Parts: sequence; structure tokens; C-alpha cells
Amino acid sequence: MPRNFADRLLDEIDAKQNPSCVGLDPTVVELPPYLKKEVLDEAKIYDRDPGERTEALFKATGEALFRFNRAIIDATCDIVPIVKPQMAFYECYGPEGVRAFLRTVRYAKQKGLLVIEDAKREDIGKTASFYAKGHLGVVELLDGTQVPNFDVDSMTLSPYIGSDSVGEFVKVCADLGKGVVVLAKTSNPSSGELQDMRFADVHGGRFLYEQMALLVDQWGGTLKGERGYSSLGAVVGATYPEQAVRCREMMENAIILVPGYGTQGGTGRDTLPNFNSDGYGAIVNNASKLTFAYRQEPYRSKFGEKKFSEAAREAALVMRDDITGAMRVAGKLPSKW
Amino acid sequence: MPRNFADRLLDEIDAKQNPSCVGLDPTVVELPPYLKKEVLDEAKIYDRDPGERTEALFKATGEALFRFNRAIIDATCDIVPIVKPQMAFYECYGPEGVRAFLRTVRYAKQKGLLVIEDAKREDIGKTASFYAKGHLGVVELLDGTQVPNFDVDSMTLSPYIGSDSVGEFVKVCADLGKGVVVLAKTSNPSSGELQDMRFADVHGGRFLYEQMALLVDQWGGTLKGERGYSSLGAVVGATYPEQAVRCREMMENAIILVPGYGTQGGTGRDTLPNFNSDGYGAIVNNASKLTFAYRQEPYRSKFGEKKFSEAAREAALVMRDDITGAMRVAGKLPSKW
Repeated sequence: MPRNFADRLLDEIDAKQNPSCVGLDPTVVELPPYLKKEVLDEAKIYDRDPGERTEALFKATGEALFRFNRAIIDATCDIVPIVKPQMAFYECYGPEGVRAFLRTVRYAKQKGLLVIEDAKREDIGKTASFYAKGHLGVVELLDGTQVPNFDVDSMTLSPYIGSDSVGEFVKVCADLGKGVVVLAKTSNPSSGELQDMRFADVHGGRFLYEQMALLVDQWGGTLKGERGYSSLGAVVGATYPEQAVRCREMMENAIILVPGYGTQGGTGRDTLPNFNSDGYGAIVNNASKLTFAYRQEPYRSKFGEKKFSEAAREAALVMRDDITGAMRVAGKLPSKW
Repeated sequence: MPRNFADRLLDEIDAKQNPSCVGLDPTVVELPPYLKKEVLDEAKIYDRDPGERTEALFKATGEALFRFNRAIIDATCDIVPIVKPQMAFYECYGPEGVRAFLRTVRYAKQKGLLVIEDAKREDIGKTASFYAKGHLGVVELLDGTQVPNFDVDSMTLSPYIGSDSVGEFVKVCADLGKGVVVLAKTSNPSSGELQDMRFADVHGGRFLYEQMALLVDQWGGTLKGERGYSSLGAVVGATYPEQAVRCREMMENAIILVPGYGTQGGTGRDTLPNFNSDGYGAIVNNASKLTFAYRQEPYRSKFGEKKFSEAAREAALVMRDDITGAMRVAGKLPSKW
């Protein structure tokens, strides 16, 4: 029986004394220009005739995304427990983008990192089972061979379809020691349109995001690990600390994935409600402000584009110290750190 | 300015006098055995050493999925207006699965079919824009070139994140004459867990699925075409005819994508509430019961595995006649048919 994902994650958080997560959301516009030039030159793009050029450019784009991620992983793998590639930034380039995603996942795992895929998938039963197998589990190839495909440790899910969808992922998690994270309260401005609507008294008068927190608590029961946390977690944005207090109360055993730190304005202090008093129960994600730190001051002047990965490492250390500093002040540092 | 998606879809529905949609959800287990053997033999799988074999098997799996789809498309493209490949069944095989998806989309468009991708994507603003560009629009490659990737005509979206997500897709739809379909009431048994919950009186006491229908109506306003329908549609399962009546009332201009016909037990009559009195406003999907008709009676005895595409064609004709027959009885056939 493989070790429970929540247990593996908490062990890594302890090992690094850091509950933060590096978001791998690379975009062509933000990649260091020297890196783009390097890959384009190697691919000899301008020697190709137009018929071949587009395909070669898709390949080169995937290669550049992977090289960028590899450098970020090398620069941060000893200080963070987990990375979160966002599938949108890869699949938008089709097969070659998905290949870059796959290479990134494999490289991160090789370097001892856990990988949570941000994919926000959901579907009805049979279809959901194919998502679950393809992302977390094993798929059946044409001759009947069963092999893993993306083989990430955990992935995000959308909740609208309900337990028919989530249940298919939970089955794979239970068998293989994997995890999922279900949206409860997202970090974006329009998240209130549905999530902050209140249900009728007959449903307990709860807000939709609270109903989700309740369901996460129920659904997560079967995936609880030795350390008391479940491998079924929830997304609760750093931009909504009040809702985070409620979510934390309603799903004590869930590990909360906290987006919205950095880019969307959340600070270390804003993430405090997501942690339990034992100092666990949350991981805080930061993507562009960290991986593309070289594009902003004070990192730009200090590092420049060629040292983009060192800039990312420094930004990751600043983030760690911001969060753990806030945890210390609030008396929420894990006792064994 | 490209022609509005809703207009293009209604034109095709008129041309074929058929509001049904062929779902392309191929699975290895259901593929005709002779087709699997053919592809495995061509790929010389058993001559390869184990190190290469897995990669070759992924390729062969993608090839078999595409060949199956191509045959189904050839057999049905003169009688149906649109096909709906479900991304889960492709991306579960990684880059080679996604390549099979891409080849399927291109082939279907070549054959004059519209393509609606079932992907149920959603995310916050910037991320959603990459999904929108990669699936419906154009992406920027490493040298700044802008090219389409999947380039489907329409795709399904999940709604939990709200207008920050949907709005990014709508922008691309408005620019390029594309469409999206947002989940309102899904066809699965657990769809009621969230979707049938009632909001408080302060929100009008509506069910969640009704709230979604209202939002679809609002959001769709900017994508209305010349024929009075919007390119922003909604999913309403054939398994819930009562909820369909309410949805139809609340979003008059939306084209409803109706899953759950066939496999999930919905009949032609069950789909009637999804159509407006003008005979338009819905497309009805059928995936495995149609594409894998050769596996069930009466098609199995009549066609066998080698004529699987002829079986699919016959099942598509039976489906068309079931739906249009029910429409005729109900006085809901478009007047020009």
C-alpha cells in the first residue's frame, strides 16, 4: 500500500520547514529573452521552410517551457516541498505543450519534489475515471498494458458535478496514495458570484463555499492519513481571509491549497487563517511573482535575466520567511521545527 | 468579422435537418479488436525492445483512436451537423492522445463538421485566457508568431469560478466567431448535490441550476447572432426533463447541449423541453451508444466489428428519427424543414 499523499506532503513540509508551493505557469512573453533565443537558434527555426516551421516552433516552445521549469526546479528543490504546474499554460500548445508538462512533472519528481497539477477537471462518472487514470493513475494502452501517464501526486478539481466526479478521483487516490484538491473559495474577484450566495434555511443557510467545505470534509474522510490530515483538500484563496476562517473550522482535516499570494495581493499574514493551530493544514502557492521575479525590482537589478533562477530562489526564500514569520508571530509554527 | 458560431450551427442543423451531435469518446476497451490488431501490427510493437515499447504503444494508441474517429466521421458527416470529442479520453494518453484529439478536430472540420470540445475548463482570469487561446483562439509561439492550436468551434466550461473565467472565453468567441457551453444541470445522478440546492429568498429562492441559467442568459447577450440565438449555450442533461423546462424558459436565446441521451437513458421525447417552439435551441449528444453501436444488438448481429462505422451511421439515423419524430409529434419541427 503506497503511503498516503497527505502524510507524504506533511513530511516534506517538515523536511523543508516550509509550507509554500512554487507555481509553474510559464508564458512565452515572460520567459527570459536569452533563453528564447538559445532555443530558437538550436532549433534552426529560420533555416526551415514555412511548411515545417510552425511544427518546429511548437516543439521549440515546449522545449523552452521545460528548460525554464528545469532551472526553477534546480534552484528551489532544496527549499520547497512541492510544485504546482498549471495545465492551461502547457495544453494551449497542444501535444508539444503537454510533452513539456510531462517532462516537467518527471523532472520535479526526480528532484524529490511533490507535484500538484492545477487542472480543475470534473466530469460525469466514466469520463471522470479517464481523467483520474490519466492524471493520477494508470491507463490501458492499445495492447492492454497498464502504465502511468502524467502520474502527478495530486490535482485540483472543480466541484459543480458533485460526487459522481470527485468519487472517481478518490478511488484512484485511495488505491495509489494520491491526492485531490477541490475548489471551495477561489481567489479571483468574481468568485463571489456563485460561491458567496447563501442557500435557503432548509439547507442550513450556508454560503455555497461553506457547503463545499462541508462536502470536502465528508468526502475526505476515507483518505485520512496517519498524521490526521486527508489527501482530499480544498482551494481557499489568500485574498479572502474571512472565508478562510470559516473553511478552516468546517474542514479540520483538509490541507488547504492557498492561491492568490503575491500576484493577487495576498500576504503571509493573510494566509494564517488557513493553518490549524498545530501549524499544518495549508500550502501557499506563488507562481509568476516567484518564477518571474527577475522581471521585477528588487530582483531585476540584482540578478538580471540570465540569473532568473537565482532570482526565483531568493523570492522563494523571501516568501518562506514571510509566511513562517507570520506563523511564528501568531504562535502557529509546528512544534517540531 | 467571422460568422457567429450560433448562426453557423443553426445553418448546419438546417442543412442536415438534424439537431444531434456525435460524441467522440473512444476507449481502448471498446475499439474493434481487428482495428487494434491492425495498428499494433503496423507499429511492429512486438519487435521492439522494452525501453522503446511503451512510447511506441502510446503512439499506436493515439493512432487507433484517430482511425476509429476518422471512420465514424466518414460514416456520419453527411447526416449530422456537429461532433463532440471529450478531451478526457485523449489527454489521458498524454502528448500522443492530445495529438489524436488534434487530428480528429482537423479531420472533422475538413469534412465540413462543426466541433464542440467537451473539456469543462475553468480558471481565474489570466489562466482562463490561456485555455481560451489554446482551445478556441490563437497562441503566441516562442518567436512571437500567433497561430491557432486546437481551433475548435466551441467548448464546454465549468461555472464555479464565475465571470472572471467565462469572460475570458467570451472575448475570444466575440473576436473569432466561436462558442462556449456552460454547465447548468448535468445529466449524472449526483448532479443534484449542489445544482438542485435552493438559494435563500434574498437571492430569489432559485435553485443553483436556475441561477446558472440566469447567468447564461445574461452572459450570452453579447454573443447573439443574426438568427436570434447566442453562441454562449448551456448543458442541460436529457435525464432531467423538468429542470429542462425551467432552463428553457430562463434562457430563451441559449442553445442547449443535451447529454444523457442513449447511454444514460434519455429518449427523444425527454429532449423536447430543451427545444423552443421554433424547433431550435438544442443539440442532443450521443457518444458510446452511437459510436460503439456495433457492440450491441441489433447492430452487433447486422454489422459485426468490421462494419462498426456502418453500425454507427445506422444508429445515428435511428437517433435523428427518434428526436425529429418526437419534435414532429410535439409540433416543434422547424417550419422550413
